Amino acid sequence: MTTKILILLGPNLNLLGIRSPETYGSLSMAQIHGEVQQRAEKLGVAVDLKQSNEEGELIDCLQEASQSYSGVAFNPGAYSHYSYALHDAIKDTQCPVVEVHFSNIHAREEFRHRSVTATACRGVIAGFGWYGLVLAIEAILASSSTRS
Amino acid sequence: MTTKILILLGPNLNLLGIRSPETYGSLSMAQIHGEVQQRAEKLGVAVDLKQSNEEGELIDCLQEASQSYSGVAFNPGAYSHYSYALHDAIKDTQCPVVEVHFSNIHAREEFRHRSVTATACRGVIAGFGWYGLVLAIEAILASSSTRS
Amino acid sequence: MTTKILILLGPNLNLLGIRSPETYGSLSMAQIHGEVQQRAEKLGVAVDLKQSNEEGELIDCLQEASQSYSGVAFNPGAYSHYSYALHDAIKDTQCPVVEVHFSNIHAREEFRHRSVTATACRGVIAGFGWYGLVLAIEAILASSSTRS
Amino acid sequence: MTTKILILLGPNLNLLGIRSPETYGSLSMAQIHGEVQQRAEKLGVAVDLKQSNEEGELIDCLQEASQSYSGVAFNPGAYSHYSYALHDAIKDTQCPVVEVHFSNIHAREEFRHRSVTATACRGVIAGFGWYGLVLAIEAILASSSTRS
Amino acid sequence: MTTKILILLGPNLNLLGIRSPETYGSLSMAQIHGEVQQRAEKLGVAVDLKQSNEEGELIDCLQEASQSYSGVAFNPGAYSHYSYALHDAIKDTQCPVVEVHFSNIHAREEFRHRSVTATACRGVIAGFGWYGLVLAIEAILASSSTRS
Amino acid sequence: MTTKILILLGPNLNLLGIRSPETYGSLSMAQIHGEVQQRAEKLGVAVDLKQSNEEGELIDCLQEASQSYSGVAFNPGAYSHYSYALHDAIKDTQCPVVEVHFSNIHAREEFRHRSVTATACRGVIAGFGWYGLVLAIEAILASSSTRS
Amino acid sequence: MTTKILILLGPNLNLLGIRSPETYGSLSMAQIHGEVQQRAEKLGVAVDLKQSNEEGELIDCLQEASQSYSGVAFNPGAYSHYSYALHDAIKDTQCPVVEVHFSNIHAREEFRHRSVTATACRGVIAGFGWYGLVLAIEAILASSSTRS
Amino acid sequence: MTTKILILLGPNLNLLGIRSPETYGSLSMAQIHGEVQQRAEKLGVAVDLKQSNEEGELIDCLQEASQSYSGVAFNPGAYSHYSYALHDAIKDTQCPVVEVHFSNIHAREEFRHRSVTATACRGVIAGFGWYGLVLAIEAILASSSTRS
Amino acid sequence: MTTKILILLGPNLNLLGIRSPETYGSLSMAQIHGEVQQRAEKLGVAVDLKQSNEEGELIDCLQEASQSYSGVAFNPGAYSHYSYALHDAIKDTQCPVVEVHFSNIHAREEFRHRSVTATACRGVIAGFGWYGLVLAIEAILASSSTRS
Amino acid sequence: MTTKILILLGPNLNLLGIRSPETYGSLSMAQIHGEVQQRAEKLGVAVDLKQSNEEGELIDCLQEASQSYSGVAFNPGAYSHYSYALHDAIKDTQCPVVEVHFSNIHAREEFRHRSVTATACRGVIAGFGWYGLVLAIEAILASSSTRS
Amino acid sequence: MTTKILILLGPNLNLLGIRSPETYGSLSMAQIHGEVQQRAEKLGVAVDLKQSNEEGELIDCLQEASQSYSGVAFNPGAYSHYSYALHDAIKDTQCPVVEVHFSNIHAREEFRHRSVTATACRGVIAGFGWYGLVLAIEAILASSSTRS
Amino acid sequence: MTTKILILLGPNLNLLGIRSPETYGSLSMAQIHGEVQQRAEKLGVAVDLKQSNEEGELIDCLQEASQSYSGVAFNPGAYSHYSYALHDAIKDTQCPVVEVHFSNIHAREEFRHRSVTATACRGVIAGFGWYGLVLAIEAILASSSTRS
Repeated sequence: MTTKILILLGPNLNLLGIRSPETYGSLSMAQIHGEVQQRAEKLGVAVDLKQSNEEGELIDCLQEASQSYSGVAFNPGAYSHYSYALHDAIKDTQCPVVEVHFSNIHAREEFRHRSVTATACRGVIAGFGWYGLVLAIEAILASSSTRS
Repeated sequence: MTTKILILLGPNLNLLGIRSPETYGSLSMAQIHGEVQQRAEKLGVAVDLKQSNEEGELIDCLQEASQSYSGVAFNPGAYSHYSYALHDAIKDTQCPVVEVHFSNIHAREEFRHRSVTATACRGVIAGFGWYGLVLAIEAILASSSTRS
Repeated sequence: MTTKILILLGPNLNLLGIRSPETYGSLSMAQIHGEVQQRAEKLGVAVDLKQSNEEGELIDCLQEASQSYSGVAFNPGAYSHYSYALHDAIKDTQCPVVEVHFSNIHAREEFRHRSVTATACRGVIAGFGWYGLVLAIEAILASSSTRS
Repeated sequence: MTTKILILLGPNLNLLGIRSPETYGSLSMAQIHGEVQQRAEKLGVAVDLKQSNEEGELIDCLQEASQSYSGVAFNPGAYSHYSYALHDAIKDTQCPVVEVHFSNIHAREEFRHRSVTATACRGVIAGFGWYGLVLAIEAILASSSTRS
Repeated sequence: MTTKILILLGPNLNLLGIRSPETYGSLSMAQIHGEVQQRAEKLGVAVDLKQSNEEGELIDCLQEASQSYSGVAFNPGAYSHYSYALHDAIKDTQCPVVEVHFSNIHAREEFRHRSVTATACRGVIAGFGWYGLVLAIEAILASSSTRS
Repeated sequence: MTTKILILLGPNLNLLGIRSPETYGSLSMAQIHGEVQQRAEKLGVAVDLKQSNEEGELIDCLQEASQSYSGVAFNPGAYSHYSYALHDAIKDTQCPVVEVHFSNIHAREEFRHRSVTATACRGVIAGFGWYGLVLAIEAILASSSTRS
Repeated sequence: MTTKILILLGPNLNLLGIRSPETYGSLSMAQIHGEVQQRAEKLGVAVDLKQSNEEGELIDCLQEASQSYSGVAFNPGAYSHYSYALHDAIKDTQCPVVEVHFSNIHAREEFRHRSVTATACRGVIAGFGWYGLVLAIEAILASSSTRS
Repeated sequence: MTTKILILLGPNLNLLGIRSPETYGSLSMAQIHGEVQQRAEKLGVAVDLKQSNEEGELIDCLQEASQSYSGVAFNPGAYSHYSYALHDAIKDTQCPVVEVHFSNIHAREEFRHRSVTATACRGVIAGFGWYGLVLAIEAILASSSTRS
Repeated sequence: MTTKILILLGPNLNLLGIRSPETYGSLSMAQIHGEVQQRAEKLGVAVDLKQSNEEGELIDCLQEASQSYSGVAFNPGAYSHYSYALHDAIKDTQCPVVEVHFSNIHAREEFRHRSVTATACRGVIAGFGWYGLVLAIEAILASSSTRS
Repeated sequence: MTTKILILLGPNLNLLGIRSPETYGSLSMAQIHGEVQQRAEKLGVAVDLKQSNEEGELIDCLQEASQSYSGVAFNPGAYSHYSYALHDAIKDTQCPVVEVHFSNIHAREEFRHRSVTATACRGVIAGFGWYGLVLAIEAILASSSTRS
Repeated sequence: MTTKILILLGPNLNLLGIRSPETYGSLSMAQIHGEVQQRAEKLGVAVDLKQSNEEGELIDCLQEASQSYSGVAFNPGAYSHYSYALHDAIKDTQCPVVEVHFSNIHAREEFRHRSVTATACRGVIAGFGWYGLVLAIEAILASSSTRS
Repeated sequence: MTTKILILLGPNLNLLGIRSPETYGSLSMAQIHGEVQQRAEKLGVAVDLKQSNEEGELIDCLQEASQSYSGVAFNPGAYSHYSYALHDAIKDTQCPVVEVHFSNIHAREEFRHRSVTATACRGVIAGFGWYGLVLAIEAILASSSTRS
């Protein structure tokens, strides 16, 4: 049986490829889905991708995630920096959630240095563009087998 | 020709396996070296591991790194939280440096939430135990080929 | 004519009973509705319950509340700690709004000590689980008759 | 056997009815005792009321409370905002202590937003005048039977 | 060809005319639309007005704005003070966005002094009621012709 | 009878056109006076322009303004960020004072985000170069006729 | 009929003359009482002096003051810097309370720069040794006749 | 030989009597000069009054004060809250300087609670309207004779 | 002649043995008195023990201490964290005062990390349970003979 | 078998006796070793002394301490105030570590009030010169036998 | 042709030699001018000295400086700590401006540690009395020839 | 006899010429030694240069400096911003220590604005590249002869 992992993307990430490509890369959201899927398949993982600009919809997705998925690679976008509601939703999620940022948030504006959602996640990966999603998938797979 | 990557570990990480195993895992530094090496080989990468409790020695290692290595997977330990000298050393390093923390620093004491070294790194990976080193190696490899 | 009061619940409270039961109690949202309704009836009060994970939908509910209800017992969940938009919505509500937290927010993480919505409410009740909703109903009833 | 609950009032609350009636209501401390007692009786509860302007005397009362009472409805007045000594006394109290403020402290001066005593209490009720004492009694009764 | 400008209004602004008229004026949202439209026509500008209480919907509007409009006069309401997600959306908008506040936010509560969205806007106009929308339209027109 | 409005410019604004033209535009103070005057005439407004580098002289101007003018369009320059003396002078001015900044102060250095003078003004216009002075004049005219 | 004014001294002021004479002067509390009394008599004022190290007793004194006195010259000692309970007591006092400090608290340790009690007083006099009590008496007398 | 004392008034105090009379009283600067002079004469003191809105002119006055005066009663107005240059000037003055505020600065806006000039003064008198100047004169006289 | 030392205990320490024994140890106040006395005798020291929950009474004890004792081993309990009045009392004490905390205050809640009373003490001993009192006695003895 | 305890001294403490003797005493490091040794012998304890200016060497010493010693009396010097790396090393040490400061760090510069290493220690002793090392040895001995 | 450099001195520096000589040295402003001139001549530099207590006049001097001078050695006195207007003036100056403080501002009161003007200067020299002006002249000369 | 001065360089300064030449200049450490030496000779000064990345080694150098040198020109690099251990070492140095930064630290990242080592130095020179070392040598020479 295939492991399934959800890629969940937050506000403004539907504009990937258009939005400041020097920061976020030049691939569109669909292209990224393709790239990640291709690599995930080699790891025996099926990948779904959902995106929403709505804080509440992201909460909905997290609440339902553990029913269908073994883990979530979550880029909360700017919600990372203030959404305690997402923090709580992550905390209540039954499967591991890994926070992914495409840019290195520590090297940008002051307000991006603090992540209130990371506190509730399994771990954080930042600074490697869309490839961070691939790393997150590996991290989810590894966390059930290698941590010792 | 084999790609070479340096795993650089900061203060107290020589005690891995002994030191709070619930936080840092139960493998010793040598065992971790072995585990990472084995996975790195599959990626065509040779891995050296250096550890020091000295801030200055870590700076020395970073200054010399780009002469022998294509990248550094660096766990600065607690120096992350105050060593601006390491920050500067990372900034001056010619090859990519990826910051790795074994624990999710965002989910621990307040003082661990801020990393002054991360600002100067290519990216950050935190919360996946020693496996984070493997992810960092992949990230270094990927960053020269996939970011687009 | 029966007095009607709205119980309005914010993000993640649809998971009541499942979500950290040691903090929020083991009754589901539907069971809580039942328990509160039963007690409210003795006080001659009819109770509706609405829940949303969406900040904007909660604002909608508050905007319409005074048309149908004599008061609102509102648990804004984590929005309490940053939603100035809800603060404004409460301020504009024509009927009394009482903020209810199931846990004692003052005894939890630092970020939960500050409530930006409480500033705009009639009062606050925290730490008594779902029973706080019953107390809020009584407070709403009392506030129109006993304050002197 | 009757349940006994202590109403403990802190500094300046002996002036109730005289002191800023627009904030604290127009009933005197004795009248409030009467009003609360009358409502408590219906709940099968006997109520004692003690007031002191002295931080130390309030500590004494809390230390002795669990010998004679099933709970304390405590309005620490302005001590709420800085008395860590009362915080410690509440923490050591064997029976539940509920913090009550007559006014909504979140809607007043900045210094009243922080309660260092609330951290040690079972819960907090603020903004409902003296009726908050009645709600606190109910909360104490409920907390031994309904939280589930 | 007519220039088209979007007036985008954030949370609680659908209550204009009802909501604290001493702060926001006594005209309803529809009346304001009329007043602004009438003045805009003289400037050869067509004006659409959208309002939402949802942070995500406002992001959606901003993302699509540059396809149909030459500029946006945006009153983010209380989201101004914390929505970094809107900040990012404004930054990615291809046409100029001008932030408008009906009240002088600097003369109100402390939390309204900081605008995290203004950082990403072309400019800010605050304190002139709905007339600020007219000024914003002029500012958008002028910014393409007069700045020199 | 012509309405008269004072344009009051603070420190370093006499260097307009020379001083960082990429921030403040390339027109000199005299040219700006001309451009604004021309537009003001169409609105039936006569415009005087005064500039001073002296905090005290700016206070003098504000104190005398209401004797000769119906309003002041005031760019306090860097005094905005610390001159409580100007704040007090504005507060005592009998005619409306509108604060104008040529650049968007919210998008520049941290210290420019706070305006202690804006607190005392009718409103603020920032980010539209010298055209902000024209908008301020309109705002002053409108504020006596349209706010409703 | 003689005007009566209360001199109320807080913690450690019973040691006047002994306690750091370079800061507080070399006269004992009794001698100061004598000096002040002598000067007060010339102004037709009778003076009582009370001192307590107890926060609660000082509150008691303030609560009863307006029954016997036309005003209070109050040196709250170190309680000035944290006693919100005294702040509240002063606010509820029916006669004017003037805060007096013998030393210039602004020129001493950082923690003495803030007075939470001064906020509730009519005014403050600091830095003139015991003579500040004489000035306070005059200020109380003047405040009922000269402020215009 | 007559003792001479300088009354030095800072920014906006030339508007006394006109400027917010509920805060600063209804007497004009000239009338206040008269009232103070009359009382000072009884104490054998001649009084000069100077006022300036200029920070630099106030520094000039303080630098020259000790040549002609035995002391200065100085109301620095809003400069109190940020003028370290005045702080230094006061520190270098050879005769005693007493800071006077007509209103109780501790009971007004947050920014008025801190006085950077008071640190360098002999003492502070605040809250007694223009009568504070009379008290300051007495304080200056007393400080040379009674402090013991 | 025997040296006499006062053990002075602050709020809630009368509950020693009952109060959180995992933090403060399981001996009662009387038992601790016995244990310390026994060890003190060997050092030729007589020991008195006083305890009070009252801030003012503790000040009284400190004021009188030097008349009967050669030093004070003082556990101010939670008053350590805010009582500037005790700070002043310690400063005025003629004999050495050593602050003792049974628990390591630096390893507990944030608010216990700061001691405003320690500033005025000879030294501080924290973390060794009641044995800290014995160490304080030795420190007092040593400080008069060995510091060199 | 003799108990062995390590005295570990941090940066600049090799200059004891020379370095500000009014703060640190006039004995050299060797003399202090002698004095402490002599007193330790009476307690049946052998004492080694190590000093290093290197943060990393101090970490090395702590890592190895529990192999040879029953406890460490550690004066981390100025590293106390920022070395989280030492904090971690102390936390991982298997034997008790007691922090000793020769001066009372709470009575010196602001930056010395905070000790980030104390958080990880058994307890703290400050203000008794080199004699604090003797007290620390006693505390280590006592902590294994008397805490109850 | 001789290089000309302006020495510009801010508030209270006209009192050099009189003002706290232990901090600022015992030479008068005129004597310092002489000493500096003499040394400057050897470097082939002519030196003018201007002093003003007025913030605005200092701005005027800076605005005009580059017309007559190759650089400015500027001691802004206490204005350094808050004058953003001077900051802007320095930024707009076409020739290099070097900030000079006679005392080491980092070793004095907290408020002198921050210089808002230094941000805009070429460099800073502090702590060497009037000789700092000589060093500044050399620095200005060197900066056009040696930086490489 | 020749005066000898030590040039002491901290972390990462061994990379001078390679490390961000736009910030630190293009000369190597050896070349800078040559340039400075050449200029120092003209002043009759011999110059040694030491560099270390180790905080502890820099402390060692400072401790020994006064035995061989008349002064130290010290660039602590990033240690300036947090090394209180170096602060203490400088304070204990018998000869003058002058802090030199090649770049203007006030014009760079926020964390570089604060120097904890400058507090203990004779003075500070920042912003003039390696030429700052020459100025420091002159300042050391001058400080023994010219300050008056």
